[in-house]
Amino acid sequence: MVLTASEVSVVPSEARMLFRKGEWTDHTGGLCLGFAQANLAIVPKDVAFDFLLFCQRNPKPCPLLEVLDPGDPTIRTMADNADVRTDLPQYRVYVKGELVDEPTDILEYWKDDLVGFLLGCSHSFEEALMNGGVPMRHIESGCMVSAYDSAIECASSGSFRGNMVVSGRSIPADKVAKAVQITSRYPGVHGSPVHIGDPSVIGVDFLQPTYGAPPQPEEGDVPVFWACGVTPQLVARNSKVDLLISHAPGAMFITDIPNEHLASL
Amino acid sequence: MVLTASEVSVVPSEARMLFRKGEWTDHTGGLCLGFAQANLAIVPKDVAFDFLLFCQRNPKPCPLLEVLDPGDPTIRTMADNADVRTDLPQYRVYVKGELVDEPTDILEYWKDDLVGFLLGCSHSFEEALMNGGVPMRHIESGCMVSAYDSAIECASSGSFRGNMVVSGRSIPADKVAKAVQITSRYPGVHGSPVHIGDPSVIGVDFLQPTYGAPPQPEEGDVPVFWACGVTPQLVARNSKVDLLISHAPGAMFITDIPNEHLASL
Repeated sequence: MVLTASEVSVVPSEARMLFRKGEWTDHTGGLCLGFAQANLAIVPKDVAFDFLLFCQRNPKPCPLLEVLDPGDPTIRTMADNADVRTDLPQYRVYVKGELVDEPTDILEYWKDDLVGFLLGCSHSFEEALMNGGVPMRHIESGCMVSAYDSAIECASSGSFRGNMVVSGRSIPADKVAKAVQITSRYPGVHGSPVHIGDPSVIGVDFLQPTYGAPPQPEEGDVPVFWACGVTPQLVARNSKVDLLISHAPGAMFITDIPNEHLASL
Repeated sequence: MVLTASEVSVVPSEARMLFRKGEWTDHTGGLCLGFAQANLAIVPKDVAFDFLLFCQRNPKPCPLLEVLDPGDPTIRTMADNADVRTDLPQYRVYVKGELVDEPTDILEYWKDDLVGFLLGCSHSFEEALMNGGVPMRHIESGCMVSAYDSAIECASSGSFRGNMVVSGRSIPADKVAKAVQITSRYPGVHGSPVHIGDPSVIGVDFLQPTYGAPPQPEEGDVPVFWACGVTPQLVARNSKVDLLISHAPGAMFITDIPNEHLASL
């Protein structure tokens, strides 16, 4: 059964039910607009303290929205009793850092010692930026956001260590302050920028992203960089934990929480 | 050797050295004004994940400023290489929830499996409130702040569960919005109020605090309540963990971080 995006213009609980039944295994971009989507990382309990501490020490790349009880697949805060094993469109399973599977559910991989982490995603603040009159050039041109391996070192925790992945956006100079103000209100979805201006300062070649599409800057734009949720997954893969399960790229968990509810202040 | 508060009007590193030498075992209130002070909780590694998750789930009562590496007594972020075992004036040691000692250092209790947690303290936001023109009635009258066991239930984690302790302040009606705005900028030190107005809604009798001195409201004041850092210690004691070490009441860790640096946005 093949559905189009407009057919899943439903509330998040209905979208999750489609994912659970395997009727949508694609990206979640554009689905359930207005509701926050979340990155997923699942690790075994024996490294969960170190991973949780990594997130606590690096709140901009790793903004925790919900951490599940060890062994419990139930999402309680960001959704009303969702099941982290089935309610995303597609997953990636890494064993000691190697990709071994891309299943549409993880029932066969679930164990009583696994701990699920939901982390904020920049889709939420992009909506707030556009509502605030800050243009998102990559969305206007239908491209993926540009993301980069930066030279910014994360604070390490146990075996979890590495540099920050950042997303880069080309912002009109007279909107940069507004972009800082708006994203500062959303610490749960990466918060304020980690760098503004000269990309070489953070070891980035702006026109050559590591991930996604190249940016299309216009005259008078300033490069602005935010911490990216790819960071914790990359760090977990590089630490070669026995088992890491994440969402498949772009196939996020859709929460019941409107983006605006994530605003602090 | 007995020192007066004015004699320890020194920088935080010097104050910590006095504590380390045992030359000051008293409260830290009024010392190193302008620098953030922190609550301390130390628990064994086997419950550290549950405790860290309790803090993550209850950021208002448990605002984490720094979590130390397991077994490492060195404070690295909030101070430049301080030693959590010696650099506070006085400690309390609880075994299975029972107070067993109030030493001036914890060298004999330190073990390789202990994890130290530094949590924000309302002294920081009280300074910001006063600087912003919001009167602190208890400070004006030289009293301890009023604190209460409230009916607000914390999100539990493992064996850590219980109600929130709140501090209550009597704020002039026309300053309440300002008090919300100012403290919202300080999520690292309890953040915005958890309740404004009728104390009975959160199970509190305003004039009969559980801890500290009764408030002295003036005509037109509104009771405003913030989450209190006593919460995590009380919850840890009640969970009867094998070992819990905290600062002695009022004898906090003095950080190298100016209060203003804790402001977000």
